[in-house]
Amino acid sequence: MQELPSFSLDLEEIALRLEALEETIIYHLIERVQYRLNARVYERGQSGFEGFPELSLLDIRLLFHEQMDAQFGRFMVPEERPFSGNLPQPKRKVNLPRYPLKLADFNAVNLTAEIKKGYLSFLPDICEKGDDGQYGSTIEHDVFALQAISRRIHYGAFFVAESKFQANPPSYTSLIKAKDHLGLLKLLTRPEVEKSIVERVGQKAALAQAKANRKIRYVLAPEAITRFYEQTIIPLTKEGEVLYLLKRPCED
Amino acid sequence: MQELPSFSLDLEEIALRLEALEETIIYHLIERVQYRLNARVYERGQSGFEGFPELSLLDIRLLFHEQMDAQFGRFMVPEERPFSGNLPQPKRKVNLPRYPLKLADFNAVNLTAEIKKGYLSFLPDICEKGDDGQYGSTIEHDVFALQAISRRIHYGAFFVAESKFQANPPSYTSLIKAKDHLGLLKLLTRPEVEKSIVERVGQKAALAQAKANRKIRYVLAPEAITRFYEQTIIPLTKEGEVLYLLKRPCED
Repeated sequence: MQELPSFSLDLEEIALRLEALEETIIYHLIERVQYRLNARVYERGQSGFEGFPELSLLDIRLLFHEQMDAQFGRFMVPEERPFSGNLPQPKRKVNLPRYPLKLADFNAVNLTAEIKKGYLSFLPDICEKGDDGQYGSTIEHDVFALQAISRRIHYGAFFVAESKFQANPPSYTSLIKAKDHLGLLKLLTRPEVEKSIVERVGQKAALAQAKANRKIRYVLAPEAITRFYEQTIIPLTKEGEVLYLLKRPCED
Repeated sequence: MQELPSFSLDLEEIALRLEALEETIIYHLIERVQYRLNARVYERGQSGFEGFPELSLLDIRLLFHEQMDAQFGRFMVPEERPFSGNLPQPKRKVNLPRYPLKLADFNAVNLTAEIKKGYLSFLPDICEKGDDGQYGSTIEHDVFALQAISRRIHYGAFFVAESKFQANPPSYTSLIKAKDHLGLLKLLTRPEVEKSIVERVGQKAALAQAKANRKIRYVLAPEAITRFYEQTIIPLTKEGEVLYLLKRPCED
């Protein structure tokens, strides 16, 4: 009686799915900026958490969260790539649609290290300076935001790249065979689409906070999320598309 | 170098904090309704998860999530009450402000069973019927929504009740001594405040989704969240306030 989600490679449908993930990212970032920067949670060896002297508090939370998620089967899905290694096996059977992807190991495209780096360098742009001591809430929202951003980037990397390949196999095949990273990046870039995404995200962020009471809620600057899409989310998505294409088996 | 949040008992400030939690609840409910009702995840013995034959998939996820949260110290905070029992001790020292509350054991006021019941009976109002097989995402968002709702209700229960008591000790003391549940409920009810909360929440829910693309995003009906506040969140908050007052030690 289930209606599993279908995975068409129609580029318009994929764009709609990417668009639907924008709200998720925006909401989680809005929640994150309710807390100060709290830089201490990102420093290794400063966690104060028993048993993990070498990790930051965020990395411990990410590890615990992903160990839980792995048991529920999260990482069976292509766009859910883990930030941590050595995760446990799923304890339930996950219903998976047949994915129209040509990669045997989805983890061959895993940009989580770059995503975490980009996110951490973006935080001082959006958070109030200082330390409010609310470390537990801070890292909780960091994990949600990182997972939402990662989902968007990997979804784009897998499905947009495969869709573009199938729309033009000869051009992509020759660039893949030549391992022409820059040529691939150029072929798959659509500046007018990027422009409309970036504008829409800024508008959504402004509207989502229109009724928020600024006496008590910090506001996520719409320009900041716009910049984050321009400088991090879109470039990493395209980087992922190139990676996917370079690892995609090409028949002669 | 930390600026710990202050906990004044100024009723206006408490109302602002409750208001700030509205966005969090709305965002999580919007995320939840992106999936079908998926009733199977709420049925005991249908989880398909190894090792917990007697629980529903949601209850297993709640348990795992709270076991993690407990280790990070979440339940040291009064408004964070656990849905599960037998949770582990924190593995880090949590920075706590001095709370102006008169209860030694915060868990003496724990409405999570009622909150879960209210939430589950609300879901068919807001979710599309049917089963999309996306059980992992469904329960993930259920846990976020439940925690956000519980935080709002318990925050109100503790801080609003203590604030109201301190504004009028004689009236509250006599009702508490008489164990007059209904009398307390009447004394602390402010219908005009409830009305403005309910209206504001509906407006926020509409605005947060104003730019959402309805081709791909399900919309959380603003009237539904309005009703949920009226019928569940506000009544349970007041129920919690009465409970807190009845358990509050009263000097003669």
